[in-house]
Amino acid sequence: MSDKIRAAIVGASGYTGVELMRLLAHHPQVTVTCLAAGRSAGKRLDEIYPHLRYLVHEGRLPGDVVAFEAAALAAAADVVFLALPHGEAVAASVELVARGVVVIDLSADFRLQDAGNRARWYGVSDADDGDGTIAALRQQAVYGLPERFRERLKTAALIANPGCYPTATILAAAPLLAAGLATAAAVIVDAKSGTTGAGRTPAQGGMFSEVGEGIRAYKVAGAHRHTPEIEEQLGLAAGTAVAVLFTPHLVPMARGIFSCVYLTAAPGVTAAVAHKALVDAYAAEPFVDVLAPGEVPDTSHVRGSNRAAVAVAHDARTGQLLALGAIDNLIKGASGQAVQCMNIRFGLPEVAGLGQVALFP
Amino acid sequence: MSDKIRAAIVGASGYTGVELMRLLAHHPQVTVTCLAAGRSAGKRLDEIYPHLRYLVHEGRLPGDVVAFEAAALAAAADVVFLALPHGEAVAASVELVARGVVVIDLSADFRLQDAGNRARWYGVSDADDGDGTIAALRQQAVYGLPERFRERLKTAALIANPGCYPTATILAAAPLLAAGLATAAAVIVDAKSGTTGAGRTPAQGGMFSEVGEGIRAYKVAGAHRHTPEIEEQLGLAAGTAVAVLFTPHLVPMARGIFSCVYLTAAPGVTAAVAHKALVDAYAAEPFVDVLAPGEVPDTSHVRGSNRAAVAVAHDARTGQLLALGAIDNLIKGASGQAVQCMNIRFGLPEVAGLGQVALFP
Amino acid sequence: MSDKIRAAIVGASGYTGVELMRLLAHHPQVTVTCLAAGRSAGKRLDEIYPHLRYLVHEGRLPGDVVAFEAAALAAAADVVFLALPHGEAVAASVELVARGVVVIDLSADFRLQDAGNRARWYGVSDADDGDGTIAALRQQAVYGLPERFRERLKTAALIANPGCYPTATILAAAPLLAAGLATAAAVIVDAKSGTTGAGRTPAQGGMFSEVGEGIRAYKVAGAHRHTPEIEEQLGLAAGTAVAVLFTPHLVPMARGIFSCVYLTAAPGVTAAVAHKALVDAYAAEPFVDVLAPGEVPDTSHVRGSNRAAVAVAHDARTGQLLALGAIDNLIKGASGQAVQCMNIRFGLPEVAGLGQVALFP
Amino acid sequence: MSDKIRAAIVGASGYTGVELMRLLAHHPQVTVTCLAAGRSAGKRLDEIYPHLRYLVHEGRLPGDVVAFEAAALAAAADVVFLALPHGEAVAASVELVARGVVVIDLSADFRLQDAGNRARWYGVSDADDGDGTIAALRQQAVYGLPERFRERLKTAALIANPGCYPTATILAAAPLLAAGLATAAAVIVDAKSGTTGAGRTPAQGGMFSEVGEGIRAYKVAGAHRHTPEIEEQLGLAAGTAVAVLFTPHLVPMARGIFSCVYLTAAPGVTAAVAHKALVDAYAAEPFVDVLAPGEVPDTSHVRGSNRAAVAVAHDARTGQLLALGAIDNLIKGASGQAVQCMNIRFGLPEVAGLGQVALFP
Repeated sequence: MSDKIRAAIVGASGYTGVELMRLLAHHPQVTVTCLAAGRSAGKRLDEIYPHLRYLVHEGRLPGDVVAFEAAALAAAADVVFLALPHGEAVAASVELVARGVVVIDLSADFRLQDAGNRARWYGVSDADDGDGTIAALRQQAVYGLPERFRERLKTAALIANPGCYPTATILAAAPLLAAGLATAAAVIVDAKSGTTGAGRTPAQGGMFSEVGEGIRAYKVAGAHRHTPEIEEQLGLAAGTAVAVLFTPHLVPMARGIFSCVYLTAAPGVTAAVAHKALVDAYAAEPFVDVLAPGEVPDTSHVRGSNRAAVAVAHDARTGQLLALGAIDNLIKGASGQAVQCMNIRFGLPEVAGLGQVALFP
Repeated sequence: MSDKIRAAIVGASGYTGVELMRLLAHHPQVTVTCLAAGRSAGKRLDEIYPHLRYLVHEGRLPGDVVAFEAAALAAAADVVFLALPHGEAVAASVELVARGVVVIDLSADFRLQDAGNRARWYGVSDADDGDGTIAALRQQAVYGLPERFRERLKTAALIANPGCYPTATILAAAPLLAAGLATAAAVIVDAKSGTTGAGRTPAQGGMFSEVGEGIRAYKVAGAHRHTPEIEEQLGLAAGTAVAVLFTPHLVPMARGIFSCVYLTAAPGVTAAVAHKALVDAYAAEPFVDVLAPGEVPDTSHVRGSNRAAVAVAHDARTGQLLALGAIDNLIKGASGQAVQCMNIRFGLPEVAGLGQVALFP
Repeated sequence: MSDKIRAAIVGASGYTGVELMRLLAHHPQVTVTCLAAGRSAGKRLDEIYPHLRYLVHEGRLPGDVVAFEAAALAAAADVVFLALPHGEAVAASVELVARGVVVIDLSADFRLQDAGNRARWYGVSDADDGDGTIAALRQQAVYGLPERFRERLKTAALIANPGCYPTATILAAAPLLAAGLATAAAVIVDAKSGTTGAGRTPAQGGMFSEVGEGIRAYKVAGAHRHTPEIEEQLGLAAGTAVAVLFTPHLVPMARGIFSCVYLTAAPGVTAAVAHKALVDAYAAEPFVDVLAPGEVPDTSHVRGSNRAAVAVAHDARTGQLLALGAIDNLIKGASGQAVQCMNIRFGLPEVAGLGQVALFP
Repeated sequence: MSDKIRAAIVGASGYTGVELMRLLAHHPQVTVTCLAAGRSAGKRLDEIYPHLRYLVHEGRLPGDVVAFEAAALAAAADVVFLALPHGEAVAASVELVARGVVVIDLSADFRLQDAGNRARWYGVSDADDGDGTIAALRQQAVYGLPERFRERLKTAALIANPGCYPTATILAAAPLLAAGLATAAAVIVDAKSGTTGAGRTPAQGGMFSEVGEGIRAYKVAGAHRHTPEIEEQLGLAAGTAVAVLFTPHLVPMARGIFSCVYLTAAPGVTAAVAHKALVDAYAAEPFVDVLAPGEVPDTSHVRGSNRAAVAVAHDARTGQLLALGAIDNLIKGASGQAVQCMNIRFGLPEVAGLGQVALFP
């Protein structure tokens, strides 16, 4: 046996699952010991993702996908990544944490900290918690954005991995709000995502023939569930409640999130001051690139990597700050961030296994 | 000889030029009598656009591209479409209008009505006009958005065809401002365009390898020249000055503009009231589809057609109206709108030659 | 009532259905009187294709999709387009033809003329025909490729509209075989299709995320059912049996078929002779462009139009002829060709309603 | 100083240059000591590729791009990768090899072994060699396909890195010819490439607007210079001259080569025998995946990785073997293969620095 961290992936058949495998198969301090899934349980991995067959042959990934069974997972793994649909992670997390396993949950189930938001946006009532186990677990959960909660992540029992839109948005805007450079009223977030954000389940709205040559918004006017997540996190940064109008779009590309955040600048704020706030916030960050004044992020420049690119511009004519963030939604917006959190939690170098340079062109 | 309108296209080698040919070749009341261009003068049309060769054989398009010569054009054409780079249309327009030809200018040269804006955004000084001929022509120019200026277009000597971003934006937002449903302060326009908006000249930034799998904003924080055009037109609709923060994006698709306009709702405005304002504005319009509440435009649904799709949503949480517009940038955003204006100017049915149904899928 | 041809579309919810609507809504001599479908029966058209709503408002398309009912269709229509899955058109055709309606079947059900091929490739036995009605109908069916069977189409009771791959392939290669310029042995067809060829039903293999940035072959080594259709038609052209190895590919674009046909040149054949064979074959054809020597077709140049582009090259080093064909799979490869056949069958101008110029760029 | 291999990249501004940087920046046993270029000499790396700026900050890549100067490169590097346009590598190689540097040339300048082919396809005459230095160097050059020439690569002074189309084609077909399973006459290669194969120089034919939604062949009928390279290598495998008809296509995707090779099967050959030939050839290969019978390669499954996927099918009806190969043209088809060759040449583990798993989706 090696001294490597033993990792299990639950929800191996989805896109965040396969991305975790891509990153962990060559992670120098991790062994993937178990792959679990729901409907795909019982299949061989290469039936689901034939391009990974060689990694099974090389002993880097398990060959079989099994059903979720908490005791077995707890025996086989030090950390479990839950890449499950929203709503399915709560019970699994309770069982796993009780058995002493570190859980990194990529769903939204533990991201929201306000009970009212959970009820309003997800229909989850704390009254359903029964004996309070879930409520206790919520207390232990840490929002898995290292740039904001690194210290708390080092000892977290449960890590609530952020959403893709929130990651791009918060990284771009939080330092500006934290520095008091913008007012918290009516923040507008106009964000654009590639198609993998919608998952692997076949749907007419995701067919190449339907979306390949156009762009459209969806879930407009506050209908998208990432709204309260962004509001909570920007509110924590600002130190006061923030109301967000969030408009997501579907773009004909597989990967990438591009977020434009419109903020009303506080009096006297200049472009230089705003830029410095980003530079100061991320000077020591291993994965955030603050672009120079005049530069604009491009999702092509972070595609395939765990990096985020952020920038800020100031429009003197309207008194607005425009904060811009670009990430790969499956990496810094999901699986890469989860690995980064794991590295922090287990005391590994934060960049371990995450050295992939963006695939450009 | 037929009684058809004789049309000439100047700037035949660019994308708005080829789109004009596509629409006019089968226009029932138009004959294309002349194609002119700059660097491409002297070429055969099929050297530039081989897929149009058969239209030359069928006698629907001229076979040769000639140099611009005002007298020859005036002799050959009743209407001249100028699809030239910005700055080159002024002199040509003066010469052509003086010879009694109707000019439809697809450049920005006559769109801006405020001299300060022309100076600030295009470096054009009215002092350069010399004897006042240009200033006089500016007075005669009509902004070619039929939904707002149809009556004046019927007798215009010079029609300033709107920009692609402004068309999508104004169609979505102007009725809301005109009805007093939103305040004019700090309107945010977050818009997304396909690659044809950048024209046909080879550039690294437009190569498939560079832009095919990503999205990025460009000319952010008020750097794009469509800003004053949008401001002027929304200001006319609102009856007061409007300040716009405009952020354009480049999307990996050939055609389409999708514009999101964020407006602060006036007190008491509801979604129903806002929707009714659009319905009322466009009830008799042949090319504008007002979507039902809850529906969202999609550029795929107007691609290849002269139609615009608009919608409005209200976010009670932030008090914002979200006006959405989608067009094909080369048609309703350029050449189709120019043909629509020509139809109006010459008393033809407004829809003549513009019956193309969107190419979906 | 007008004197227009009354047309019904069965299978209105699929891509060939919507393409028929796109073409027929503005056809000058056709009225679409009925839309029928299977699972979508009972829906409003704009629930299925919201971008067509305005055509319902304009009275150009029916607003409701009904269930198939032969008597009602026969009462309402002079011609019925069957855009049904393979296997479902036989019974419908029998009922409709018996009622005197002209049927244009876009499925494969009546394309194959050899009973052995029908049995081998589709599992259809003539013994299933019962009283011989189907067999009799097969005798009346005409393969709907106007460039080869125009005369017979003028009186056909049932038109078997060709497949998309066969159309591109036959148009490119048949004249060469008919002129004896190539041997009939082991013709290789390497063809590439856009994603709409697979239809509108959601499937993982058609999701943007899966196919948007790659290319792959499928149904290789003679597994695709278009193989016998190509063999039969090339055999008719050659006057002798032709064996075809057909390899289809899926390309990340919505529309288009590009077919490369490799033929062993007969002794003494030159590039000029081969080119002349195409020129001679298509000199009077309204929709086939024979490219000049050295030119190569491009699906972008026929996209959105009913045109086919063909070319031939000769490789002296290997003694091969390379015949190339490009079409839009949904138009010349399906619905446009069906309209062309209808025009021929009803004595209308062959180009009526088919003047759409390719949407390039 | 470390014991790492010191590597220089000449032609750093192109796509194979940036891909070498992507792979080498994190190679555990390599330090990139110098970046050189032609027109880009004097620029900072982040002016050319802003997404690599952080690698400069981390000390993984040099920050400045210098002009080519053989003596300086020889002093700074143990191995020089030449990513230059064809024709420019000869002189540079002579100078560098004379100074004892290992040269890995990604151009075509040293790939062809037959003087007649060099003269016919590239216009290069051995008479131009002057004192025989170049001819001597050609003798030392080894074709950099490890799967065929691994032993010779271990001591090569100059490695001629294969072309992208040849790599995909040879890997799929050479074992079949080597095993005598196919005749060498008239091999047909129908191959498809992404847009990066054409390089980074802006050209109308590579603009998104022009190629984004279509497919076309180019340089048909033996006009592409990869033809003799494929012929020479397949001839070496077959032990007899092979004539190839090669048809390349441009596909709307950034990366990937998909090659279909049509071979006439020798008498008695079965699918199982052909499959076994591939399995046997690649059993010990670290980067070649032989797919199971019935499986078909997909460029999406190797995108971003150094892996090749190959398969073979047999069509009993026509007696043809269909050999299929898929690679990422910039990695196994260029820069990844170059790194693999470097690893072999310097006695490093062959997979060092090449563990990237394909970026799917």
